[in-house]
Amino acid sequence: MSLEAMIENMARAARKAARQLRSTDTARKDKALIRLSESIIQRQDKILRENAEDVTAARDAGLSPAMLDRLALNPARLKEMADAVREVALLQDPVGSVTGMWKRPNGLMVGRMRIPLGVIGFIYESRPNVTTDAAALCLKSGNTVILKGGSEAQRSNMALEAVCSEALAYAGISRDAIQVIPTTRREAVGILIALSDYLDVVIPRGGEELIRFVTQNAKVPVLKHYKGVCHIFVDESAETTLAQEVCFNAKVQRPGVCNAMETLLVHEGISGEFLLPMLQRFRKAGVEIRGCPKTLEIFPEAVPAVESDWPAEFLDLILAVRVVKDMDEALEHIERYGSRHTEAIITSDYNRSQRFLAEVDSSVVLVNASTRFNDGNQLGLGAEIGINTSKLHAFGPMGPKELTATKFIVFGQGQIRT
Amino acid sequence: MSLEAMIENMARAARKAARQLRSTDTARKDKALIRLSESIIQRQDKILRENAEDVTAARDAGLSPAMLDRLALNPARLKEMADAVREVALLQDPVGSVTGMWKRPNGLMVGRMRIPLGVIGFIYESRPNVTTDAAALCLKSGNTVILKGGSEAQRSNMALEAVCSEALAYAGISRDAIQVIPTTRREAVGILIALSDYLDVVIPRGGEELIRFVTQNAKVPVLKHYKGVCHIFVDESAETTLAQEVCFNAKVQRPGVCNAMETLLVHEGISGEFLLPMLQRFRKAGVEIRGCPKTLEIFPEAVPAVESDWPAEFLDLILAVRVVKDMDEALEHIERYGSRHTEAIITSDYNRSQRFLAEVDSSVVLVNASTRFNDGNQLGLGAEIGINTSKLHAFGPMGPKELTATKFIVFGQGQIRT
Repeated sequence: MSLEAMIENMARAARKAARQLRSTDTARKDKALIRLSESIIQRQDKILRENAEDVTAARDAGLSPAMLDRLALNPARLKEMADAVREVALLQDPVGSVTGMWKRPNGLMVGRMRIPLGVIGFIYESRPNVTTDAAALCLKSGNTVILKGGSEAQRSNMALEAVCSEALAYAGISRDAIQVIPTTRREAVGILIALSDYLDVVIPRGGEELIRFVTQNAKVPVLKHYKGVCHIFVDESAETTLAQEVCFNAKVQRPGVCNAMETLLVHEGISGEFLLPMLQRFRKAGVEIRGCPKTLEIFPEAVPAVESDWPAEFLDLILAVRVVKDMDEALEHIERYGSRHTEAIITSDYNRSQRFLAEVDSSVVLVNASTRFNDGNQLGLGAEIGINTSKLHAFGPMGPKELTATKFIVFGQGQIRT
Repeated sequence: MSLEAMIENMARAARKAARQLRSTDTARKDKALIRLSESIIQRQDKILRENAEDVTAARDAGLSPAMLDRLALNPARLKEMADAVREVALLQDPVGSVTGMWKRPNGLMVGRMRIPLGVIGFIYESRPNVTTDAAALCLKSGNTVILKGGSEAQRSNMALEAVCSEALAYAGISRDAIQVIPTTRREAVGILIALSDYLDVVIPRGGEELIRFVTQNAKVPVLKHYKGVCHIFVDESAETTLAQEVCFNAKVQRPGVCNAMETLLVHEGISGEFLLPMLQRFRKAGVEIRGCPKTLEIFPEAVPAVESDWPAEFLDLILAVRVVKDMDEALEHIERYGSRHTEAIITSDYNRSQRFLAEVDSSVVLVNASTRFNDGNQLGLGAEIGINTSKLHAFGPMGPKELTATKFIVFGQGQIRT
């Protein structure tokens, strides 16, 4: 069978399973999730064996130590994966809940009921834990999913699919609800994202190149984010200690992720007392500072920032720093260089906090808290399948509820239009 | 200037205006809307003069009487347009409302605030009233809009843009918030929908060919519906009089619209008493019946239905009719041939009503009411810019709220991630 025919068959089966799954009750879905959580541990020998082969092949292929680390599983990581699946089982099922109901003048009762999206195509890179995370979230929200992970993780992903499959069958749900594409061929991505008759949405998660390829070639709607160029604006009214703690956390706690701070904007009215100790602390933590001319006056060790530093997502211990003369200049900078991902203000001024919340057009806008909180778990969604920086459908982190749509339901007594 | 450069300039101006508009308060937006409503009447001579030229040119070009009727304006129609704009002014402004707020264990307060989508591209055919309807809805929801209407209505649309522009200026809002592309060239559509740096979403409204072109060529997200193949299932427990009134209304009251019934499914347990008088009544109203073999037994005057009748959107006084042996068969038929638009059940059975609401995967699902209620006004959204039959973003009719996204807002006291 050709690759095209194989993937189309999978998608057709996924659509058929979606019809069953959208009417499957919560208890049955949770039964499969709990079983999956248990099986990840019970079958760990098999999973680790397959993963070890992936790791060996990747090492032979010359993958970087960082990449190998992302790929490698061990009992502790499997325990984390099993726990994550169990947590999804414990979340509230969004499907079937009615978000408001109202009565029309003609007596019609109209409400909106949450329903699954249908069939999700999920394309990601080489961390096998994402396989079970995504599978669990899709199942919880009543969606079937076709997974295409990085080729380096193929054996691991197939082993995890087998565990998912058994858990689905155990709960009486079609095995086609969770399918991993059984090939490492890259053309599979292009084939999958063109199947507009079967897929309702595609979610790519990975580097900018992957996201761009999917966005430009998909024939179905795409939920994605390109990058996080996150800003913190330290207002002149900020408490300096609080500002330093939050800024340090946002940059240093985990610099390689999309919600880490990339640019620090500082009101010139506080730059004297705040900026020098802040930059010294960053320096001590190994952060390279790329500063505007005013920053260089205060902290001559900084590298002069160039234009390309302002829209940059460093994902590293590098920070662009700019002193601004007022809040307008900070907002202007964010509007021009930001990526609509995450922005925070540090302030003690009520009006400025309100203005920042109202005017900044990003998926998460914070007052006096670290940008690192842009995360489905941290914001209380329970879990997340990704962060969407296009405003359509769901802006920001997407949990189980964001994997649903709403349909209108109408209770009548024979009403007609006149 | 090339067409490309001109449209890109418009889009750039629309994006700039969007930044202003998203922070513009409700009173100012409503001031512009009320002024627009008044000016449509006050400037009717100019609008009607330009429209008359459109109509003359269209008649000379051989447009059908039905198309000419859609194009032509008169004082009564302008009054309807002005009233529609005034009604939008009276709706609640969705922007800035916070849909829930919750406290995290670390003390963070997290909420979701409604914000405009940004810049909307709106592409439609030759009814000039759609120009002011769409402009008003976009303005109310804080979005700027670039409009591309049918070439036959170009003079009318430019006259209406002038009225919009004056109303915006009167309220102190950038004139770039509502722009009509000043050309009848069809390439303008392809250019507009590729501008992913400036547009947040494209909404096409019109025939299937237009929708398909936009969907296949857009580089920005698209909200659209192809067609409405709407079903009514008359269950064996239906009250026959109620069933007849609703079915008659759904087919005959306005057969040319997307929420009219196209296929009637009848439980065989009621087909004897319900179907013959129903089809006789349809016959009398000039409805052509295309029936399954069992329908033909009951009503021999029917045309035998062929396979292509079941997925057909007739938009005319034609009705496909099928007798089914049970509810499963009806649901199966809808799943196979439906367009996820609008489906209704007529029943007196509680369990069947609940099952139908839960299992049918359409944007509006009704019990004992006409499919004709799938409409933003009728369902209580105030107004609609279109109906979306893809599940992403908003499923079903889209009112002002559906032209917004939500961002997360977070109130902290120095929280950091550990």
